[in-house]
Amino acid sequence: MRIDGGLLERQLDELYAIGAEAGGGAYRPLYGDAWAVACDTVERWMKDTGLAVRRDAVGNMWGRFDGSGGSAGGKAVVTGSHIDTVRHGGRLDGALGITAGLAALRALIESRGRPKRPLELLVVCEEEGSRFATNFWGSRAIVGAIKPGEADAVTDAEGMTLARAMRARGFDPENISAAARDDLGAFVELHIEQGSVLETEKVPLAVVTTIAGAVHLEIVVTGRADHAGTTPMDLRRDALAGTAAMIQAVQSIAAALGRPAVATVGQVRVEPDQINVIPGRVTFTVDLRHADLGGRRALEERIRSLCGTIASERGLGIEIRTLHERPPVPMDGDVRKVLDRAATEAGITPAALVSGAGHDAQVLAARCPVGMLFVPSIGGRSHCPEESTNPKHLALGTRVLVRALELLAY
Amino acid sequence: MRIDGGLLERQLDELYAIGAEAGGGAYRPLYGDAWAVACDTVERWMKDTGLAVRRDAVGNMWGRFDGSGGSAGGKAVVTGSHIDTVRHGGRLDGALGITAGLAALRALIESRGRPKRPLELLVVCEEEGSRFATNFWGSRAIVGAIKPGEADAVTDAEGMTLARAMRARGFDPENISAAARDDLGAFVELHIEQGSVLETEKVPLAVVTTIAGAVHLEIVVTGRADHAGTTPMDLRRDALAGTAAMIQAVQSIAAALGRPAVATVGQVRVEPDQINVIPGRVTFTVDLRHADLGGRRALEERIRSLCGTIASERGLGIEIRTLHERPPVPMDGDVRKVLDRAATEAGITPAALVSGAGHDAQVLAARCPVGMLFVPSIGGRSHCPEESTNPKHLALGTRVLVRALELLAY
Repeated sequence: MRIDGGLLERQLDELYAIGAEAGGGAYRPLYGDAWAVACDTVERWMKDTGLAVRRDAVGNMWGRFDGSGGSAGGKAVVTGSHIDTVRHGGRLDGALGITAGLAALRALIESRGRPKRPLELLVVCEEEGSRFATNFWGSRAIVGAIKPGEADAVTDAEGMTLARAMRARGFDPENISAAARDDLGAFVELHIEQGSVLETEKVPLAVVTTIAGAVHLEIVVTGRADHAGTTPMDLRRDALAGTAAMIQAVQSIAAALGRPAVATVGQVRVEPDQINVIPGRVTFTVDLRHADLGGRRALEERIRSLCGTIASERGLGIEIRTLHERPPVPMDGDVRKVLDRAATEAGITPAALVSGAGHDAQVLAARCPVGMLFVPSIGGRSHCPEESTNPKHLALGTRVLVRALELLAY
Repeated sequence: MRIDGGLLERQLDELYAIGAEAGGGAYRPLYGDAWAVACDTVERWMKDTGLAVRRDAVGNMWGRFDGSGGSAGGKAVVTGSHIDTVRHGGRLDGALGITAGLAALRALIESRGRPKRPLELLVVCEEEGSRFATNFWGSRAIVGAIKPGEADAVTDAEGMTLARAMRARGFDPENISAAARDDLGAFVELHIEQGSVLETEKVPLAVVTTIAGAVHLEIVVTGRADHAGTTPMDLRRDALAGTAAMIQAVQSIAAALGRPAVATVGQVRVEPDQINVIPGRVTFTVDLRHADLGGRRALEERIRSLCGTIASERGLGIEIRTLHERPPVPMDGDVRKVLDRAATEAGITPAALVSGAGHDAQVLAARCPVGMLFVPSIGGRSHCPEESTNPKHLALGTRVLVRALELLAY
């Protein structure tokens, strides 16, 4: 089956040019101008491919090729990804799943014609959470998981509500529930890894086993702000010294557990933050991820316990609160088998990888079996202009996607 | 010799009420309104005590009681402290040296009359650096260490130059050099410890041996900002993890050296400072102090070397630059002997303490022999509304100061 690798690269270039930012990268926030231009562009490509295109109540786009079965083939086999980006986003995150999905549907339609089950390309309106203080807006609408009033409650950095931004693009916030679907048969997404495991292990493709959930903790350590010159080392209650020990503990607990456990301290705020005052209070965040809930809970439990011990040994106060918690979502076993088979037929032994990043597939899993393919990210870079993948790997991923969709839909 | 402890406490209360801030404490920044009221108040007290008062070219106040020798007694024996405060400053820092110095001069004049050498009370206009981006303004003017053009180059947070603030109070920046004196015989200052060594060791008084200098370093650690979910622990170059190890190293090197070595990390800035991104860059400061230059250099050298090793072991970049460096200043041996004798006569075996904080005495040491007495700070607190000292210790410090001035001037 023929894949036009050149067309794939040109379409990636064309999408990447929409929303190009000074300083590099592209930014296509939900319901913004660049977002709208990108949607129109992909809609044109979908129509050229022979797909019947519609936009749903929140702005997801669906390009459909009917199946041959009753009611035009029953539940749909869907592929695709999101069209929005982070600030200074790269060329592939989201865009690859859309353009490769389109290439796959084109190849199948041209070479195999009418499938048994309908084939659809899904262009998710928002996944990144880069404009509004929410994320998975598109996929949550599809599974009916948007709460009443949510569009009015959520704002962007300028204070515009999601509801107002929807209306400005011709969408009615009162109608969000109409975006929900219960006729999805499977969802398969091709994405870049956004990490460096495949590159390091020299494997060109992965079948995702689980999308790791994340727990976000906020830890506040309180000591006593004293004069940096007059307080001997042995009489201090230095909140930052305690925090440094906790950061090291967080690191070593996750490292000792081994992959796929990860723990990251990303934000630190020191008070009073003066060069000659011993820190009296430090607030920091911990991002914890693991493939299974038991492993993650064990990781969190050890971190909470060791941080508590460090605080009490040093006479420091500690408060830990959970900011956010998202459970791990295993990929569907049957879809994984299809993806493994398609990879094997392409001559590849795929890696079995946990996705540390979140993806729409974890939301759509509430409605249908889901699966994901990862291709390597050069240097592990993502969410930045350096985001890049060897064209051979893009083509390989697309070929495996085509075969998987063929196995699912024909 | 009679000291009116009640008057001392009342004057401390009166000064503390000038510049009282919402949220507690007092703020009397150089050349501000509260500063001016405080100067007028102390001037009135000095005149009531029989001192001849003058203000110098930068606003230091000198209250003089002539000696009996030729040219009214030769070089002056001086005591005093600064009248400015930090924000939310306490009741004693600076104010104690002024009010206790006044009580001492009053007691000596009343009971001993005319001294051989002139006695002076010095009210230093600025020491804290809390308004303008400079400090030791008053004492530097006295020793002739203010650079030409400095008053025009230095501004406060509102962008007002020191020169303009001087003119608004009737001082001429062109005339700063007139504040210099070369007729100082000795300077003795009573101050609170601002730390908790005396309290911990249950000693009511210390004779300062050295004012520790400080080195301020800025350390920039660079790693790589990666996705917190997709980058395994073993493939990270986490600038904050490296920084945590460095903060611990800074602590343990100083702790291992023992008193009076201190090292403090007071400021930390993490980039990009996002909950789900591994920190790519961290900037932090180190404040290092030690009683002697050799010890401090050894401390700095060990810290630089260990931080470099930690960075290179973790594949991190590191840059270290010196923001500020002030050498340790030993107190004069003869003045220390006088202070020790005065303490012993009061029935006290004083502690010999290194001052970790900076004081005007370290600047005035360029012109005359200097010495300092410390009384305990309750809980070690200072530069805050909780700053407090047992009235018995205030009275003891004042009695020892009186006797020391008597030994020096009569």
